[in-house]
Amino acid sequence: MSNPTAAMLVIGDEILSGRTRDANAHYLAGELTQAGIDLKEVRFVSDDQEAIVAAVKHLSDRYAHVFTSGGIGPTHDDITADCIAAAFGKSIDVRDDARALLQAHYDAQGKELNEARLRMARIPEGASLIDNPVSVAPGFMLGNVYVMAGVPSVFRAMVASVLAGISGGAPLQSRTLPLLRGEGDVAAPLAKFASQYSDLSVGSYPFQKDGRHGTNIVLRGQDQARLDTAFEELAKVFSE
Amino acid sequence: MSNPTAAMLVIGDEILSGRTRDANAHYLAGELTQAGIDLKEVRFVSDDQEAIVAAVKHLSDRYAHVFTSGGIGPTHDDITADCIAAAFGKSIDVRDDARALLQAHYDAQGKELNEARLRMARIPEGASLIDNPVSVAPGFMLGNVYVMAGVPSVFRAMVASVLAGISGGAPLQSRTLPLLRGEGDVAAPLAKFASQYSDLSVGSYPFQKDGRHGTNIVLRGQDQARLDTAFEELAKVFSE
Repeated sequence: MSNPTAAMLVIGDEILSGRTRDANAHYLAGELTQAGIDLKEVRFVSDDQEAIVAAVKHLSDRYAHVFTSGGIGPTHDDITADCIAAAFGKSIDVRDDARALLQAHYDAQGKELNEARLRMARIPEGASLIDNPVSVAPGFMLGNVYVMAGVPSVFRAMVASVLAGISGGAPLQSRTLPLLRGEGDVAAPLAKFASQYSDLSVGSYPFQKDGRHGTNIVLRGQDQARLDTAFEELAKVFSE
Repeated sequence: MSNPTAAMLVIGDEILSGRTRDANAHYLAGELTQAGIDLKEVRFVSDDQEAIVAAVKHLSDRYAHVFTSGGIGPTHDDITADCIAAAFGKSIDVRDDARALLQAHYDAQGKELNEARLRMARIPEGASLIDNPVSVAPGFMLGNVYVMAGVPSVFRAMVASVLAGISGGAPLQSRTLPLLRGEGDVAAPLAKFASQYSDLSVGSYPFQKDGRHGTNIVLRGQDQARLDTAFEELAKVFSE
């Protein structure tokens, strides 16, 4: 049985200009692998309505789950919520439960829930809120799209609560055989091995250590017993 | 006059599984911004022929330049060159000039140019080689697609030689105003300011320092004089 599929959409001019290095895609990739969900594609787009709407529609049609990060703050360049609503043909407005969360938060801080902050309570029709234990302003889920913050600490907290509610498959396991031989030397026996274990993913990743070329061979699969059998065989191939 | 557009395609299972954190997209983003080329989109896909071919076709049709990283080594999972050839409907085979580069390199090391290593001399019909001063095996350019290595040191060297041959527009300049006020407090005056300077990109990025909320306002544009005028005005808005 194959695992559910997923895609991620990272939203923000600051990523594409090189000002900020995205950290969320790598984090989500690791969490999804643990959860038995296959991340098939990641896209970065700028704060551009047309680009966001087109990407959301495409990814949402194609994969079981879509995770977004970025663009849900209070400023004029935070347009993600409106774009998600547009992609699904839904209306969007300030919602009472989201407003109540923000009201309580800013009341406690003695700050005003002004019009800008109220933008963070704009939730598309029919969406469910995603809890934000770090800074209160919620994310939301609409259809198969999970809309989360770009700030890494908030993104991580939201991912934790979202993944608690998604059924994954068998987590992807991996075993790594490090070899002190260059890729060019291991390629031929490795290709033969990979064709014999075509139910597993067999990857090859070069490294350099103390001026010597090495290769990490990584086997990936969902069945631990099968992986262990393959790993023993792999070790035998390269001990000769 | 608007700048040329670009997209990037990062290829590799190890990125989507979370094993490796991509470093090349962030590096390329910074270099393109310097060169006056607008990076519009980044995609990560796995070592999957169908996914790579579809992404290359789409991005190559839509943007002036497409940069790829990953999948051009000697092992069975390195399928990028074949996918690029397929995307452009070109044949692919070992090419004499690429073979000569590899032959000289491995001769000097006393290593055999075996069948696996020779895979790195497979170049699509009609492509130009991209120099690899780090580890010799070349990248290549076909149409508007620049095919480069995933290893960051090699990727960077290849980007340098590729960008030397591309005409960019005016480099994107930026100026940043750090404010010790939360985004919710700066949002309203900032939105008004952004509408008055709609020829510039006006971004807002929250940060926390010593437990206080702050916001970096970033202005971006190609005309330094215009940027300086706007920045003075911005500083005035937030000094009141």
